[in-house]
Amino acid sequence: MLIVMIHKAGPKQIEAVVKAVETMGLTAAPIPGSERTAIGVLGNKGYVDDTTIRDLPGVQEVIHVSKPYKLVSRDFHPRNTIVKVCGISIGEGKRPVVVAGPCAVEGEEQILKTARAVKKAGADLLRGGAFKPRTGPHTFQGMREEGLKLLAKAREATGLPIVTEVMSPDTVGLVAEYADLLQVGARNMQNFELLKELGRIQKPVLLKRGMSATIEEFLAAAEYILAEGNPHVILCERGIRTFETATRNTLDLAVVPLIREMSHLPVMVDPSHATGKRSLVAPMAKAALVAGAHGVLIEVHPEPDKALSDGPQSLTFHGFDLLMEEIRRLNAFLGVDDGGEKAP
Amino acid sequence: MLIVMIHKAGPKQIEAVVKAVETMGLTAAPIPGSERTAIGVLGNKGYVDDTTIRDLPGVQEVIHVSKPYKLVSRDFHPRNTIVKVCGISIGEGKRPVVVAGPCAVEGEEQILKTARAVKKAGADLLRGGAFKPRTGPHTFQGMREEGLKLLAKAREATGLPIVTEVMSPDTVGLVAEYADLLQVGARNMQNFELLKELGRIQKPVLLKRGMSATIEEFLAAAEYILAEGNPHVILCERGIRTFETATRNTLDLAVVPLIREMSHLPVMVDPSHATGKRSLVAPMAKAALVAGAHGVLIEVHPEPDKALSDGPQSLTFHGFDLLMEEIRRLNAFLGVDDGGEKAP
Amino acid sequence: MLIVMIHKAGPKQIEAVVKAVETMGLTAAPIPGSERTAIGVLGNKGYVDDTTIRDLPGVQEVIHVSKPYKLVSRDFHPRNTIVKVCGISIGEGKRPVVVAGPCAVEGEEQILKTARAVKKAGADLLRGGAFKPRTGPHTFQGMREEGLKLLAKAREATGLPIVTEVMSPDTVGLVAEYADLLQVGARNMQNFELLKELGRIQKPVLLKRGMSATIEEFLAAAEYILAEGNPHVILCERGIRTFETATRNTLDLAVVPLIREMSHLPVMVDPSHATGKRSLVAPMAKAALVAGAHGVLIEVHPEPDKALSDGPQSLTFHGFDLLMEEIRRLNAFLGVDDGGEKAP
Amino acid sequence: MLIVMIHKAGPKQIEAVVKAVETMGLTAAPIPGSERTAIGVLGNKGYVDDTTIRDLPGVQEVIHVSKPYKLVSRDFHPRNTIVKVCGISIGEGKRPVVVAGPCAVEGEEQILKTARAVKKAGADLLRGGAFKPRTGPHTFQGMREEGLKLLAKAREATGLPIVTEVMSPDTVGLVAEYADLLQVGARNMQNFELLKELGRIQKPVLLKRGMSATIEEFLAAAEYILAEGNPHVILCERGIRTFETATRNTLDLAVVPLIREMSHLPVMVDPSHATGKRSLVAPMAKAALVAGAHGVLIEVHPEPDKALSDGPQSLTFHGFDLLMEEIRRLNAFLGVDDGGEKAP
Repeated sequence: MLIVMIHKAGPKQIEAVVKAVETMGLTAAPIPGSERTAIGVLGNKGYVDDTTIRDLPGVQEVIHVSKPYKLVSRDFHPRNTIVKVCGISIGEGKRPVVVAGPCAVEGEEQILKTARAVKKAGADLLRGGAFKPRTGPHTFQGMREEGLKLLAKAREATGLPIVTEVMSPDTVGLVAEYADLLQVGARNMQNFELLKELGRIQKPVLLKRGMSATIEEFLAAAEYILAEGNPHVILCERGIRTFETATRNTLDLAVVPLIREMSHLPVMVDPSHATGKRSLVAPMAKAALVAGAHGVLIEVHPEPDKALSDGPQSLTFHGFDLLMEEIRRLNAFLGVDDGGEKAP
Repeated sequence: MLIVMIHKAGPKQIEAVVKAVETMGLTAAPIPGSERTAIGVLGNKGYVDDTTIRDLPGVQEVIHVSKPYKLVSRDFHPRNTIVKVCGISIGEGKRPVVVAGPCAVEGEEQILKTARAVKKAGADLLRGGAFKPRTGPHTFQGMREEGLKLLAKAREATGLPIVTEVMSPDTVGLVAEYADLLQVGARNMQNFELLKELGRIQKPVLLKRGMSATIEEFLAAAEYILAEGNPHVILCERGIRTFETATRNTLDLAVVPLIREMSHLPVMVDPSHATGKRSLVAPMAKAALVAGAHGVLIEVHPEPDKALSDGPQSLTFHGFDLLMEEIRRLNAFLGVDDGGEKAP
Repeated sequence: MLIVMIHKAGPKQIEAVVKAVETMGLTAAPIPGSERTAIGVLGNKGYVDDTTIRDLPGVQEVIHVSKPYKLVSRDFHPRNTIVKVCGISIGEGKRPVVVAGPCAVEGEEQILKTARAVKKAGADLLRGGAFKPRTGPHTFQGMREEGLKLLAKAREATGLPIVTEVMSPDTVGLVAEYADLLQVGARNMQNFELLKELGRIQKPVLLKRGMSATIEEFLAAAEYILAEGNPHVILCERGIRTFETATRNTLDLAVVPLIREMSHLPVMVDPSHATGKRSLVAPMAKAALVAGAHGVLIEVHPEPDKALSDGPQSLTFHGFDLLMEEIRRLNAFLGVDDGGEKAP
Repeated sequence: MLIVMIHKAGPKQIEAVVKAVETMGLTAAPIPGSERTAIGVLGNKGYVDDTTIRDLPGVQEVIHVSKPYKLVSRDFHPRNTIVKVCGISIGEGKRPVVVAGPCAVEGEEQILKTARAVKKAGADLLRGGAFKPRTGPHTFQGMREEGLKLLAKAREATGLPIVTEVMSPDTVGLVAEYADLLQVGARNMQNFELLKELGRIQKPVLLKRGMSATIEEFLAAAEYILAEGNPHVILCERGIRTFETATRNTLDLAVVPLIREMSHLPVMVDPSHATGKRSLVAPMAKAALVAGAHGVLIEVHPEPDKALSDGPQSLTFHGFDLLMEEIRRLNAFLGVDDGGEKAP
């Protein structure tokens, strides 16, 4: 940690900062500069809460040499993490996976029909929401456990592993009984009690970035899960909230290569929620793969116009077939086609 | 709901939209315009999920006549709601309340000392976090139940009702045993399972606005609590996340008069978290009251420089005394001084 | 400037950074830490462009001790600047001024009528746009020079000094012939050629904050004007662009006390553009004054419903009378009533 | 235009709205609904300024059927525009172009060396700033006319057409003497006097999106240029300002397919300014091309570590060679390789 003093800071103020640092059991090393003094803080293990320093008289700013996360950082864990979901490897050097399905499970026919269609088209995993976080209480909230059972049926019928959202600590056990990959939605990225609970199981977790979460906060949220003992975490960019209203969210695709630099965890992209517009899903899915995403989540519905949620961003079966065809060609071009490791 | 077609939309597209609307059990009334056609949707009760419509071919946009909330809306409940906390009335026409205390309960001496100091200075309620949501898992997470017990002691010692945060559905019961006003933090504004649980008790709830929540989403979150049967909700603006980094958040004070127009619920302001800077707390607290806030939350700490969290935005006892003096003068000026109803 | 290395940075990388610093004619002082090394940069005069350093291998981050501005900084110019407009003093310790008038000059009757009405109500200056920046070219663009002439007539009729916008360097001379205070709109805050031109005249300038400008960029924009030799600058917060759409912009009122800390220049607030909603103008204007603003800009129109621009946020004459009455009472309460210096 | 009334709106309020609409020379058609009334506005040509309506008593909201632009809209001009720069065709179906060069022209050797290097690597156009918009006045402002002359020399030496920024109306003539494609920077996207001046020449213009500009504002800014008579406009996404600070800006790649839907103008992407980080430039450049961009702008510098601006995001000659190799392979895969039209 480095503490920068204002250029008028006197010896007394510097002394006070040094004392405060020492109170924290750390060492302070003042660095006199031509214009002002800075104070280096040594000996801390990991992140230091700077609130005891930041506002002392004469302090201009405090900058951190360490981050609020360690376990998820490539700095401390250089080797790539490969997350296995029912034998499917997700991560660096593996063929990117495609997770497909409806926003919400609406009934047996809908989910089975969709599962068979996306399986036929070549999807790797099946997604479908049983517990739905909705802005208001007066709209469809999901089929809950009944929905989980239908997902299990769809898995039996197709062999596709299941990805579904969990919304609260007390339902982690229930959802984990059915799901192969547990999803944490954007609204719950900082639901820390939920994250801790997920850290106590050993099933893989798909953590979506919060609507206004910085990359640092995103990685720190994943740290909660790893810190509790569950290393099987996949990160997912799904668009952030900005002033732009022409798209549902703003897909921040640059975080894909950035996260690959900062962390060893796999990173996926959800172009359906990010754009909210069917016609933008395919171009953004392909862009995500070229940017280095380890997988994409695509919303597919038998009849998007009748979907109980997210119809406008859901692909039809035909639209999904076309996208999968493009993705296969793209993977071949990128040298990450079936089974293949990335070319050197 | 009104559906606007693109100016090239043909009879077939219009027909399809009409059908889709009828499938929803609603009535569609096409309105031919000089440039294009619009279709009015009639007969819906409350908000209509437009996802089955928004993306039909030929549809340009869908606009809502109803909102995702009803119970919190002044439109449907014109009379102001006054929330009572241990006999203290909070809301329109009442003297604005001051909730003061440390960000986190750190120990018996700290909380008792602070409780006595803020009581002496004239605070109405005592705040203090026992369960602390922190960006990373490696920083102080709060004293949990032990913290709640210390808050109860502080209440005995001073008579001040207690405001403290609840972070998960399964701890609502525990926190409700101790707290007089249960706070939902910004990160949990859309933790819907938590909101529903809070709707099932009858203790008052202080709901903080999410960092990137629109007013509509904020009110819709409150709707979750009211919809479950608990009408005792106070809204709290605490700053939103923007591109500006000079302050911790951007205090969106204009929402105070706006919420008073849109809803009958009381609205409070937290200038401490909003600004993150001690020197900005007093001016923003006074600005909030002049803008019509029904109360303010002020962080106070015996030794801000040693606080385990939010030290830089915490006032000293002396600073809080001065602020309370200014607030008393301001309330007198505004005609909402002690006990007094607002002057006509 | 301080350069922080990643914790694995080797001697070669550190050496390279030291060299790069020396190439810039500065001195580099490596500071070995327990976890990693930092390098202090000494001897720079003012801000250093860090682009030659920031991306060297092994560099984690660069932090600045100096800012991109000096002349506007209180750090280097502690005494408050009082800007005089036709004998009216604007700044710390003076009675806050009220600038009132229509968004745009629409005709002789409209501007004269408004000028007389706001004068009668107690406004200090008259505002009115002759050159109007509009999102699209197909809407009213302002009366240009003819509008300036009408403003001059209104000044003759009422004695109110004129505030009006200038949009390009080549019209600075023309606008300066008529205006007493030249306004730079939010869209032009970083129109640097315009700022430089305004720095070459001696008339006071009202600089509005850009829609997505940080405080640092805002002050740096003012620095352009001062650096060219014109010290008569007033800053104006008018709302920033955020995700929130319930208001036209988000009024960032906390910058008022913040700017008063960071700079010696006067700061005003425009609640009309910030909120875009008539009913929010009065509460935000009063909040701004309590927060320490040195003045407010209020849009007033004889018939807001017929205004060619910004009708929804314009006050009627009656609404403005009521606001002025409230402002007079508030100024008396704040001890900054007519002529009076602020009480100690 | 459609006007939605609140559900309590009475006949008088509806009548007043109808009158206001008729005052504007338009026709009003009230549409009684089950919950409330809406009023259709007919007969308007293009965008209607709704400020005379939006705030009438009883009006809930106004929605627009037309947009603030027409000429740039695909709705009114379905055929793709191909912009020719010195014989190079830019737009739909053409091989995407690569514009490469330093952020700023710093001297003869630097620009000539870079021009030869990017030419050799296969770039189509040379970029270089002679007039530089900088946050503060105390940093390098560009070589101005001398820089333009050096760019002309580089063109002679390599045959590469020149792209350079113009910052004010009065320098349009000067810059147009030298440049083949005139760039409007993000800070000037709403410098309307500049846009109008550029509309009066016939040279192609590269219009960059403002840091906080919506797509609608972006297209409306282009409308200013087309409305004055210059149809040769290329749009350029360069990242928007959000809360995220890990990248310089947030690259909003989804606007590429979106703009291709909304407008007939070519759209390019600048991954260098968008990310601000060298390691992110190549992945984002490739992602942009896969998303359908008609070209990319890449910053290249002989010695990024010594660049006077934007060093951290500039590629070395070697890095640019590698990127061009990847782009050639990608274009071949996409079926838009040299000279070739897009495959059906």
